[in-house]
Order: sequence, then C-alpha cells, then structure tokens
Amino acid sequence: MQVDFQTHPDQYRHWKLQFDGAVARLTMDVKRDGGLREGYELKLNSYDLGVDIELADAIERLRFEHPEVGCVVVDSAVDRVFCAGANIPMLSGSTHAFKVNFCKFTNETRLFLENASEFSGLKSIAALNGTCAGGGYELALACDEILLVDDGSSAVSLPEVPLLAVLPGTGGLTRLVDKRKIRRDRADVFCTTSEGIRGKRAVDWNLVDAIAPRSKFDALVGERANELAKGARGGEGITLPKLEVKAEDNRREYKFVTLEIDTAARVATLEMRAPTESAPANGDAMQSLGADQWSLRAFRELNDALLHLRVNHLDIGLVLLHTRGDKANVLAWDQALEDHQDHWLAKEIRTYQARILRRLDLTSRSFFAIIDEESCFAGSLFELALASDRAYMLEDDDENVTIQLGVANQGSLPVSTGLSRLEVHFFGEPHLLEAAKGLTEPLAAQDADDAGLITLAADDIDWEDDVRIAIEERASLSPDALTGMEASLRFPGPETLESKIFARLSAWQNWIFQRPNAVGPEGALTKYGQPDRPTFDWRRC
Amino acid sequence: MQVDFQTHPDQYRHWKLQFDGAVARLTMDVKRDGGLREGYELKLNSYDLGVDIELADAIERLRFEHPEVGCVVVDSAVDRVFCAGANIPMLSGSTHAFKVNFCKFTNETRLFLENASEFSGLKSIAALNGTCAGGGYELALACDEILLVDDGSSAVSLPEVPLLAVLPGTGGLTRLVDKRKIRRDRADVFCTTSEGIRGKRAVDWNLVDAIAPRSKFDALVGERANELAKGARGGEGITLPKLEVKAEDNRREYKFVTLEIDTAARVATLEMRAPTESAPANGDAMQSLGADQWSLRAFRELNDALLHLRVNHLDIGLVLLHTRGDKANVLAWDQALEDHQDHWLAKEIRTYQARILRRLDLTSRSFFAIIDEESCFAGSLFELALASDRAYMLEDDDENVTIQLGVANQGSLPVSTGLSRLEVHFFGEPHLLEAAKGLTEPLAAQDADDAGLITLAADDIDWEDDVRIAIEERASLSPDALTGMEASLRFPGPETLESKIFARLSAWQNWIFQRPNAVGPEGALTKYGQPDRPTFDWRRC
Repeated sequence: MQVDFQTHPDQYRHWKLQFDGAVARLTMDVKRDGGLREGYELKLNSYDLGVDIELADAIERLRFEHPEVGCVVVDSAVDRVFCAGANIPMLSGSTHAFKVNFCKFTNETRLFLENASEFSGLKSIAALNGTCAGGGYELALACDEILLVDDGSSAVSLPEVPLLAVLPGTGGLTRLVDKRKIRRDRADVFCTTSEGIRGKRAVDWNLVDAIAPRSKFDALVGERANELAKGARGGEGITLPKLEVKAEDNRREYKFVTLEIDTAARVATLEMRAPTESAPANGDAMQSLGADQWSLRAFRELNDALLHLRVNHLDIGLVLLHTRGDKANVLAWDQALEDHQDHWLAKEIRTYQARILRRLDLTSRSFFAIIDEESCFAGSLFELALASDRAYMLEDDDENVTIQLGVANQGSLPVSTGLSRLEVHFFGEPHLLEAAKGLTEPLAAQDADDAGLITLAADDIDWEDDVRIAIEERASLSPDALTGMEASLRFPGPETLESKIFARLSAWQNWIFQRPNAVGPEGALTKYGQPDRPTFDWRRC
Repeated sequence: MQVDFQTHPDQYRHWKLQFDGAVARLTMDVKRDGGLREGYELKLNSYDLGVDIELADAIERLRFEHPEVGCVVVDSAVDRVFCAGANIPMLSGSTHAFKVNFCKFTNETRLFLENASEFSGLKSIAALNGTCAGGGYELALACDEILLVDDGSSAVSLPEVPLLAVLPGTGGLTRLVDKRKIRRDRADVFCTTSEGIRGKRAVDWNLVDAIAPRSKFDALVGERANELAKGARGGEGITLPKLEVKAEDNRREYKFVTLEIDTAARVATLEMRAPTESAPANGDAMQSLGADQWSLRAFRELNDALLHLRVNHLDIGLVLLHTRGDKANVLAWDQALEDHQDHWLAKEIRTYQARILRRLDLTSRSFFAIIDEESCFAGSLFELALASDRAYMLEDDDENVTIQLGVANQGSLPVSTGLSRLEVHFFGEPHLLEAAKGLTEPLAAQDADDAGLITLAADDIDWEDDVRIAIEERASLSPDALTGMEASLRFPGPETLESKIFARLSAWQNWIFQRPNAVGPEGALTKYGQPDRPTFDWRRC
C-alpha cells in the first residue's frame, strides 16, 4: 500500500471545513468504510492515518489560505460521539513499523496545531459533544480550549492503559502533566479509569476548560470561539495547490526536490535545489508569488518527500542529502523572509520551514549531507547539513566547493528542544558557537572543518572511497540500534513538551508496542473486542 | 537466583580498594569464574550485576567512611585491559526484565559516582591502561577525568551499535553529547566505529582528557589525582556495617523498614518507621551515632528493600507505602540534618536520602501511599507520599490521622529532574506550591485534600473498600503499560542529564532489547561471538 499525503478539502472523506468570518469549523465525520486499507471499520469517529492526513491538511490550509480565521472549532457530526480515538483493529492489524510511523505523524499533526496557536494567531477549541476517548481526547489536549457537553454521560478518557495495555501515544500523558498541569496523582487516576471523567470533576481537575448542558453547549462554543478569534491575523490568504510530482517506483521528482530510492543499497538520495529567480522584494511580492515561491514550495516538496520516505519506503535506512544551485539565491530568499518577517506570509513560511526541518530531525533514518561540487549548502539549506548525522565535504583544489552560513542559521529554525541547529551542533561550546555565527563568507572544506561545521573533509583522491565506505558501513548496521542512537545523539541539552513527547513518551510507547502483553497472541491489543481477557506476563521491567 | 546487595571490601571478589592519603585507588580485577550465575565467564574485566554491586558499595564507603579522600582513581589490574564492558553472554542469556533492571542499577551507580563529585568533594579519575570498551568507557564517562595510555593501540570505544545492535545503555550516549559536549556528528562516528578512537584524536574530540605513553602514565595519573584530591572534605569517617535483616521468603525485616510480599496478590507492603530516640544535637553527636542513626540507617534499609524488590520480586507490580511512628520525631531528625548541614556527615546523609528517594522514583512499580492510623507521613517520610503515584488518606472523626510538611520537603531531596517533589506535585501551579509550602501544622484528611497534597480522602466507612478496590484494579493492569505510563507522569517539567538517561536513552534501549534484530534467534546479541553474521529486518521504525 502506497500512502499519498496530498489532499484537499474537496476530496476530504472524513472532515468538513466550513467558515464563518473569523471562526472556522472543522467537523469530524469519519466514513466507516473509508479506511486506508481493508480489514477495519472506522466506527465512532475512530481514525487511521488517512483521517489524520486530512486533519493535517486542514490545519496547514487554515494557516496559509485563511489568515482571516482566528479560531477553529474542532467538533463532530456524529451524535453523542466526538472521537473514539485511533482505530483499534487498524492498530492491532498493523506492523510495528507502521504503528510507530503512524503515531509519529499524528503527534506531529497535533504539535502543528499547537504551533499554529503560538505563531499564526490561530486558536483552536475542541467542542466535545459526547464520547471523547483515547486519541480523541489527545486531539482535544492539543487544542487551546476543551469544552465538554454536560449531560451526565459524556466523558473524556484515556482508556489505553486499562483496556489495551498500551499508552496514550499521541502526547496525551505528557500534555496532561506538562501542558494542562494536572497533578500527577490525578493524571494517574484518570489514565487508569477506562470510563473517564465527566462534568464538574473534569473541570475541577482541568481535564476540560468548561462544561455546559446540551441546550447551552452551542452558545458556549460560539462565545469562546468569537473570543479566541479576536487574534486573527486578517488579510488575504494564498492557495496551496497540489504539488506537481513525477512519481515512478523509485523516484519522485518535484520542481525543487528529487527523491531517489536505491532499494538494493537501502539508500535514498534527497536533492534540494536552490531558487533560480530573484527573491521577492517585499511582502506584496511574496503574497502574489503565493505557494509557488521557492521558500514555501521547496519545503512543501521536502515535506512530501520525507513523508513518502517514512511510510512508503521503510527499508531505506540512510538518506544522502544533496543540494544543487546557487548559494547566493538561497541566502537572498532567506534574507527576504527575515526582512519581511512582519508580513504574515513571511512569518508563516518561516515557521513552516522550521516545522519541516523538525520533521527531518525526527525521521528515524540516518542522514548524511554530501557537500560536493555544485552543492549549495547555504542558509536554510545548510540547516539540512546541521540536521544530518554527518556532513561529508569535498576538498577541491580551487576551493569552489563551499558552504555558507546566513540569517536562517541564527535561530529562526529551531529544533524541537528550542535550540537552533547551530546551538545543538556546538552544544556546551559557546565560544565555538559565537565564532561560527561570525562566519558569513563562503567556507571551503578546510575552513569549514577548522570551524567545526562539517564532520569530514576529503580531497579529490579520497572523496569517492571515503563516502562510499561510510555509506556501505551505515547501511549494514541494525536499523533499531541506529534509531535509538540517533534519537539520543540528535538532542543534547534541554527538553521541551515537544521533544519529551518524542523522547520519553514515544520511546516507551514503541517499547510497549513490542511487548507480548500488548501485541502477543494473548496480549490486550490482540484480545480487544474478544470475549476472553488478555493474559499478562507480570514481570515488571 | 536471589541477589544480595550487601557486601564489604573484605568480601570483594572483583575490586580492590586501597588508600594513600587523600587518594584512593579502586582497582578492577574481575574474577573470571565469579559471575552471579552459571553460564558465562567474566573475561577481560567484563562485568555483571555482582561486579557492579561491589562498585556501588565502594563508592558509598568512600563517601561515608573516608571523608579524607578527595580523589578515587578507578583503574585495572589486568594487563592492557581496563574494562570490556558488560558481559555479552550474560546479557544475551538474561531475561528482558533482568537486562532492564541490571542497566538501571548500573546507571544509578554511575550517577552516584557523579553525585559524589558534586556533593562530597570526591572526584574520580578513570585511568585507562588499555582496552576500554562499551560499559567500560561508560564508567569512564561518569568519572571527572579520563586518562588514556598512548601506546598506539589502546582505545576508547562504544561498539554496541556496530557489534551488538544494542545501545551503549549505561548513559554513554547522553554523556557524550550532554556532559562531554562532544559534537553530535563526531559522537555518531565514534559510536559506529567498533575499534574506537585512540591517542591524540581521542583528546581532540574530548573523548578523554589526556594521554601519556605507558612509561609516563602512572606519573600523569598521580599528578592529576593529587590535584583533584585537594578538595577532600577531611575528617574521620563513620563505618557502614552490614544491615541486620531478618529475611524470610516473603518478608524482610530491618530495624526501621519491613518489606512484605504478597505473591498471590502481586502486592508488596513497604513500611518505614520513625525514629524513637531524640535527634542528635550537633554534628559531633551525629558523628558518634554513625551509621546507626535513623536518618541514615532507615534510608539504607529502604535502599536495600527497594533493590530486593526490583531484582528478586519481579512479579510484584504494586507497593503500598506505610509509615509508623511519631511524626514529631521524623521532623526533629530532618531538622537536625538541616541545622547541621555544614557538617560533612549531615550533608552526606541528606544527599544519600535524596539518592535513595530517586531510586524509588525510578523503580518501575506502582506506589500507593497509605496514610492511616499510626502513620507518620511527615517531612522526609512525606516525600514517600509525594513520590507515590497516589496517596490515600483516612479521614477519621477525631482527625488523629494527619500528614505534616517539614524542612525536608523544601527542596533538599530533589527528583532526578532537579525539582523538589512538591514542585513536581504542583508543577506549573506556583500559587498552590507556595500555599502548600506555608502549611507546617499537621493536616487532617480534609485539609490535606483541600491543599491538594493527597489523592483521595476516605472516611471510616469507605476506607477499606476504596483502598482494596484501588489495589485490586492496579494489580490487574498490564505491567508494561504501567511502567511506561508512570515514567511519563512522574516527571513533568524540565529534564537533566540524569533524567534524560532514564527517559530518552533507557526507554530506547528497552525497546531495542525487545527487538528481534538484537535478541531474536538471528539477532546480533544472540549471534555475537558466533561465526555467522546476524540477519536484520531492515524496516526503520
């Protein structure tokens, strides 16, 4: 099964997106027989990856196409059911690799919703008209406000631990204690109470922000939405067209990005190309270029390529990052985003670039940046090298091969821990960081090496062998060990809610998704919905 | 196999502890046939849990028995071999639960060594006379300085990923980038290079602090040791006697602690008793009481009980924490530690209490504090309730059942994230935190509940049923899901090197320890030392 990550509101099968001035309404109405693959029914607004791809699309469109919207109300068209969470038969019928990648994507979608609140003046309200369980409540937790109907039965719940022997894996545990500041003993009670918590207690414990009887619920939602919508950016949006891509079995070619898959070697090459046109001179020019401008289009293409790689090419362990084009153009386009950062679209594009680069940091593949002739690792494209596990640079006699730092490397594209990639690269070495920040000229291999900006410089004679051997060695190592190693080395320093979700929470969930108590023949995920109870190995690890 | 955690230098089989003024020398000389169980040989100074129990004992003795020591040199008696790391046949022959608990203990031992450097003026030097691989280098990383012999062959290495398809699981990855500030791309190269890195390059990359040829190595070590030893606290130590314990199959009774195991219910009861004697009036009195004083003895007993629970009673999923005695006495002993905190022993005891409470936080069992008649959850013993996943409190008519905050709850016993347990409890709620800090009177159940200090208050009529049902429900849940849930809920807020080791790194390692690529019949850990290569499932998760 090949998953396609592009969609459009006209094609949505599971959501409806409507507009009323500064308030948008995103209504979940999951099509029962609309699963990505056979074998499960999407009952009770439960979701699979296909449902979440539409949700992610809707959030991006609200940000780019509708700056006039200040609040999106996420609600449900199903009577007395908001969302039952991730579909259990889908999960228990999925491979481990698919489960992990599914959870990663849904986690990113929820983080992108929070990111919209922080950076795009787009607040969100979860309007819970009934049952809100598991991943449904985790979606609510990602919203700015959670409103629950008070009818004596509608409850919020995270029943994963008691019912399925897995974790609420979409950030729920972390958001309970870190975001909503719910006391950890109460969170413990809540997460082990399968029926959940409703009414006044849900408010007292801060599980929801407000409740209202069914007769007054719409009024409450409307009132809160109008209030939150006051921070709308205003103005005209731009349209996000479908990305043009020439797709073959082992190759996806976009305008600025090409992904090539070498199945036999288990290696992919991901090339990003510099812009060829001049950078927009002001916000109006940017606005009229719309989604076609390099800064946005190239990173949308990168995003699509990364998602394809993650879900449709699981066997690929190593990605070689190439760049082609004129460094000066990359730097000029980065500078335009910096110069016009007060324009909503420049700001939106920059936070988009940041999010997609974070998606790269969190992709469980090894990345080697290959800095060779005609490459253009400068500014925002040099972030690709900083995001890589290693950067190999050709040392040529004429010093034509260079890298170049720019304004995009100064902190506007942070990793999930909040640090810039240069801060991560020189973690705990402030003098090296400061020295590097001052280097704005093109740097040939020796200078780049001296500044600590690359992993290895190799001259013409050694280059091919050095790179080839490194690739072969990497591709021979255990994919699991590499995933764990990279997750540990890529994120020195502080952690944030976002990084904790992928570290503490997801790593534990991945472990549990392997455990016989969940996925074995007698495990709870396997036995769910069957008359007999699961059987547990009681040993605590 | 029952593991005994008590030992003494006279009984060491694998280490020799020697003293020369302010410098101690702790020499690793692992007895080949001295493994904790049959089935593996401890070649090349490789270690198992038994070796690490002696190391942990030596570190504690240096802290309490030898305040005159300011630097311990960790070296090896084996020619050209420092330490080959954790024993591989032992690991591949161990259950998953044992592997996880083994790694947790070794992690704590290394953190305790760093804790000695931070709080006890006890610095450490790893004097690497030869091969230093895997867990051997991870032990070195926990030392303040790493000195390596420069002989053209001796190298430091973390070969776990390339050779065994598992992670360096004893903090190595985190310490490389977070502690030693090694650039993450270099760390990536280092961790995938099985032969390791030696000589000048090891210094340049900060993998070691200094190198010297074999002829000058002892002089270098001596010089650095004398320099680091200058911070010794000085004075007379106290003796740590073997703890007296009446041990039966399902019961361990110490002077101040009793651990009772209910195998059928999979529930343990851990009782801590308050001191009965008056608190020491000054540092001298404290010194003459030595290891017999409540503040130290009770927590040494708690430590031993926790370790037994972890390793010898894997099936026990829930621990009920009880306390018995006079709250006033607990508070008085806590106050004595506060009043005499300038005395080395008071400081040492307090950091010891903090470490053992952190061991409780990191124990993968559910903890319920049971606050009932005759309980004495006050001060340092109230930390037990704060460390618990839930606290149940009896609401009696006469309000005889009370809890009481004291000086020990104000921050001197931090969790591994650096926060006090009250700060964790009221994370993100500064007004509740401040209000609670001001409550110094005994609080009956309703007041404790109003202040948010307990999870549930129940009156005489409901008490037994409420507690019984909660226990039965908890004991019925999947142990893995609970471990992951507790690890996520217990640590809101910031992370530190210590907490990252147990979150990011250990969680990934636990996952990998489940993966067929490591532990399956064709996995690398299984195939290690055999002529045929492992076979990997290449899918990246």
